[in-house]
Amino acid sequence: MKQQQILLKERPNGMPTRSTFQYEETDVVQPTEGEVQLKTLYLSVDPYMRGRMNDAKSYTAPFQVGEPLNGGIVAVVTKSHSNGLQEGDVVTGMLEWKEYNTVDADAVRKLDLHGVSSSAALGVLGMPGLTAYFGMYKIGEPKEGETVVISGAAGAVGSVAGQLAKIKGARVIGIVGSKEKADYIKSLGFDEAINYKTDNLKEVLKEHCPDGIDVYFENVGGEISDHILPHLNTFARVPVCGSISSYNLEKGERDIGVRVQGFLVKARVKMQGFLVRDFEDQFQEAYKALASYIEAGELQYEETIHEGIERVPEAFIGLFKGENIGKQLVKVSEK
Amino acid sequence: MKQQQILLKERPNGMPTRSTFQYEETDVVQPTEGEVQLKTLYLSVDPYMRGRMNDAKSYTAPFQVGEPLNGGIVAVVTKSHSNGLQEGDVVTGMLEWKEYNTVDADAVRKLDLHGVSSSAALGVLGMPGLTAYFGMYKIGEPKEGETVVISGAAGAVGSVAGQLAKIKGARVIGIVGSKEKADYIKSLGFDEAINYKTDNLKEVLKEHCPDGIDVYFENVGGEISDHILPHLNTFARVPVCGSISSYNLEKGERDIGVRVQGFLVKARVKMQGFLVRDFEDQFQEAYKALASYIEAGELQYEETIHEGIERVPEAFIGLFKGENIGKQLVKVSEK
Repeated sequence: MKQQQILLKERPNGMPTRSTFQYEETDVVQPTEGEVQLKTLYLSVDPYMRGRMNDAKSYTAPFQVGEPLNGGIVAVVTKSHSNGLQEGDVVTGMLEWKEYNTVDADAVRKLDLHGVSSSAALGVLGMPGLTAYFGMYKIGEPKEGETVVISGAAGAVGSVAGQLAKIKGARVIGIVGSKEKADYIKSLGFDEAINYKTDNLKEVLKEHCPDGIDVYFENVGGEISDHILPHLNTFARVPVCGSISSYNLEKGERDIGVRVQGFLVKARVKMQGFLVRDFEDQFQEAYKALASYIEAGELQYEETIHEGIERVPEAFIGLFKGENIGKQLVKVSEK
Repeated sequence: MKQQQILLKERPNGMPTRSTFQYEETDVVQPTEGEVQLKTLYLSVDPYMRGRMNDAKSYTAPFQVGEPLNGGIVAVVTKSHSNGLQEGDVVTGMLEWKEYNTVDADAVRKLDLHGVSSSAALGVLGMPGLTAYFGMYKIGEPKEGETVVISGAAGAVGSVAGQLAKIKGARVIGIVGSKEKADYIKSLGFDEAINYKTDNLKEVLKEHCPDGIDVYFENVGGEISDHILPHLNTFARVPVCGSISSYNLEKGERDIGVRVQGFLVKARVKMQGFLVRDFEDQFQEAYKALASYIEAGELQYEETIHEGIERVPEAFIGLFKGENIGKQLVKVSEK
């Protein structure tokens, strides 16, 4: 049996394009002892993958040219040679971008989503949800009545981070790039939404943050960030989750803007980069909390789902154009 | 009796000049019940005072035009109407820039320097020493074998911070602006000295930090800092003590350089601004530790002392030209 897989054709210089990706027909592999064959249901595209496309030492090994790309996938077991998993089980793991993965059963985790759609394992109950949880609760630590600002607020991480801050009683302002996204985050309970493409950031930040900013959850970097700095209150916390505005710099281009040092000293700010995997020992606590918030109706989530493995490049590139609301997924097949 | 005092004549735009300061003759005030009259021995000039010369909200109230400047001073009690202090006692406190202060006895602290010169109360056993202690030990937290880089390494704070890192067994590299300062920090036990004015920073950082940087103690900001960022190791700590390169920006000028966000995420770096007074409840612990290191010969210090109250502007302006080695003081009178 044949299947499609997606390889890294060439390392992008700047924004990825269709020619970053190569589709290839390959055999579906039969599982041997201890292995399972998995049919991909949902494939996750995430901004951090852009970093892995560069040939640069970073926190995760770079993708290799000519090799399959990989990332978070939800799949169904189609054949099992393992006692732990049965045909029909729905699992998640870091898998290759193909229609069928054949891997050791230990490489995936069986989903137990308490009635939530399996796709949530790639979003609110997956890496993005955990990222929001640890960034907001372990570094941001918002307190009742504090002002929290979130950039990239309609995305998979930002939309969860904002609701988590609301749960703690903070005033939450989200920064987004369209009217539709502004409406979306207001519907989630954000107190204010700023559209950086149409609002005068300098003015509206003053207006919406009259008491300054206590937590800035950083997803985008760039000029938006530059505008935040003067508003940071004494002992403000800045969990740095990402800086998507800088991911597609061209070779030799540097991310130039306002230096932070003066602001950090003046207000004694803590600015801290983090990765979800740094909190691995606390994943169970986080899954449990997020599931309970969903059950209680305090945490909502949205997914932007493209259908068909052929739409993966479009979905990935769209992340950097702000096309998604909530978690961007590709639905590869039906269960 | 008449005395000289120094007022803020006008707020500097950019680098302070002689015309930032105004000398004025004024009466020496007689102390009343509970007060003491103090003769200034040593007057401290510190980079942070530049911020107070602006009419801007910051962590300390701005100086007022036409009013005396103030800062850390060591003085001797010349008259006492307080039971707590006697004539001849040597004290320190935040006092006005004049030859004689008359203040409530509670506003100053009697020195008990265990044989160290009283001037040390403004340096290694004063605000700069405490700043180095808390920044290095409570935020930087260097471990044995780690690589620590310190900018402004020959100054009052940097020179102490480096020695404190050595005490913990770290490899310590200092960045300074002259050959004389490079020799000085090597004499203190720094493993390497970089002269940013003559060395190619990019090259020598690679050479001296082959295993990356675990702690960067930030005193200067600016381009030096920009060069440090790519070398920060996973979970590096950056205590941000100051950014002297940006203190004399002209009105409307912004501190533009490399944005930190991308580096902070990639290496999960914690960058944290701090002020010594945030650690007030731990001052006694710090004084004790610093005094014990001095006694054990593990902590040395240097002072650059100008003589005469008329040299205060020169001493202050010199801070921003890198003219001092160790703590910059003005000796106003003999005990």
